[in-house]
Amino acid sequence: MSKITVQDFQQLASERLPFAELMGLQLQSIDADGLWMRACYNDSFLRPGGTIAGPVMMGLADAAIYALILSRIGPVELAVTTSLNINFLRKPAPGDIVARATPLKFGKRLVIGEVAMYSASQHTDIENFTDREIVAHATATYSIPPI
Amino acid sequence: MSKITVQDFQQLASERLPFAELMGLQLQSIDADGLWMRACYNDSFLRPGGTIAGPVMMGLADAAIYALILSRIGPVELAVTTSLNINFLRKPAPGDIVARATPLKFGKRLVIGEVAMYSASQHTDIENFTDREIVAHATATYSIPPI
Amino acid sequence: MSKITVQDFQQLASERLPFAELMGLQLQSIDADGLWMRACYNDSFLRPGGTIAGPVMMGLADAAIYALILSRIGPVELAVTTSLNINFLRKPAPGDIVARATPLKFGKRLVIGEVAMYSASQHTDIENFTDREIVAHATATYSIPPI
Amino acid sequence: MSKITVQDFQQLASERLPFAELMGLQLQSIDADGLWMRACYNDSFLRPGGTIAGPVMMGLADAAIYALILSRIGPVELAVTTSLNINFLRKPAPGDIVARATPLKFGKRLVIGEVAMYSASQHTDIENFTDREIVAHATATYSIPPI
Repeated sequence: MSKITVQDFQQLASERLPFAELMGLQLQSIDADGLWMRACYNDSFLRPGGTIAGPVMMGLADAAIYALILSRIGPVELAVTTSLNINFLRKPAPGDIVARATPLKFGKRLVIGEVAMYSASQHTDIENFTDREIVAHATATYSIPPI
Repeated sequence: MSKITVQDFQQLASERLPFAELMGLQLQSIDADGLWMRACYNDSFLRPGGTIAGPVMMGLADAAIYALILSRIGPVELAVTTSLNINFLRKPAPGDIVARATPLKFGKRLVIGEVAMYSASQHTDIENFTDREIVAHATATYSIPPI
Repeated sequence: MSKITVQDFQQLASERLPFAELMGLQLQSIDADGLWMRACYNDSFLRPGGTIAGPVMMGLADAAIYALILSRIGPVELAVTTSLNINFLRKPAPGDIVARATPLKFGKRLVIGEVAMYSASQHTDIENFTDREIVAHATATYSIPPI
Repeated sequence: MSKITVQDFQQLASERLPFAELMGLQLQSIDADGLWMRACYNDSFLRPGGTIAGPVMMGLADAAIYALILSRIGPVELAVTTSLNINFLRKPAPGDIVARATPLKFGKRLVIGEVAMYSASQHTDIENFTDREIVAHATATYSIPPI
């Protein structure tokens, strides 16, 4: 069972993660295997070429793995990213980006997570995203502080 | 000689890169070997633990390599990031982040750049940054569209 | 349908990829979604700590994506790796390593593939690997030469 | 001062790192800022296209950072790679590959190193390598076991 609720995370984000607010990040749901997070589109997402700026997807991937860690170990402030690798696969059209985050390893000192990102119109249900083409794919490592 | 000026880039950023504006990115100088870019601190940079959020450094690294490409080949809109890898090395205290971007390879189809990032108070000259400890280090690949 | 057979790849490996031979790489099967490749254990795989050396898994991941590309576009010699990122998740005990390679994107100029690697005794069937814990996970980008 | 000598490392490699032996790895020198390591060419390095196989450079980078760690903290067996990222920049002609490894961060739990690799004929002195074009560039993270 998740150590935090969706509401807990959104409250933490609104109080302590101003960047997540700027990017319109919304945790959608937490399940046994991972979670879904959405970056809700606004015009600041655009970059030349009429596509979504890379930092939106990097920030979404980073926050999704952060939420994944909090969901498993509770609200530990100083879980910090040590490295992140992202591949940009397709140019998403203007619209929301939806992320599926799952753990590759949950160690005591290091957590490695994987994030697949999909382009979404604003009213699409998340159920069928995994049939779609991935627009960006990230892996990231977080360091967990000693208890 | 650079194909764009610092002013050209700042104008492009203010008109076409809203994310760069949100992050307070300022191109400082372009030289024969690379360039310096600064992310000017505001409170939205903070994350739990009193340090700078990762997306600030990811966005700075990405924009610095984008500016490096424009400085060499001119204002090509559709140069897009294909991958980015970042290592977060030290937790920067609240303040500006200064980036030094240099090319590892300038090919016709792919450009790979390296970015070293330093923590800065708001009044430090850039001349002596390379003596300091790096807070984050990134490499990124951009795809250059056929002419 | 695959543009090369398992036998084609093994012949190419034995004639042209001496490193794949040193590492005991064997393409197992090619299907519509990806392929399976195995690094058959020998004592040169060991490193201090009684676990498998990282270069075995890096070489396996690289070769698996190379085979994936040849299976889709035929035996193009100069498809070359442009970048590779690997996370080592668990220390595999001495034994074979089995890799599942799938494409994240198949573009005309760039192919990005994902490889999940599993620890195997020498007599385990591949059917049930995806239920196991991943020991290493890689993504890699290949550049495809113009036709 | 280095906690191991060049001879210590070569002995450890010959006894405990069979992969390093297969790849002809030779630690050249250790200095205050980093070290030089060489992969001595043999025909098993070749891949289709008449260039050096990626796993040679990945193995060289990994071993160079391992040696760097041992030079600073002594012969700790279970320092293990947690992630490695490599960019292949230019296709090296058949011949030795020479690596310059330097630390980006030396923490108690994590070490992050950077490796620049150069193509070399067999008789070139290392003094002038940093003027040459880099053929591959890697960063890697190692986890250091608790004492």
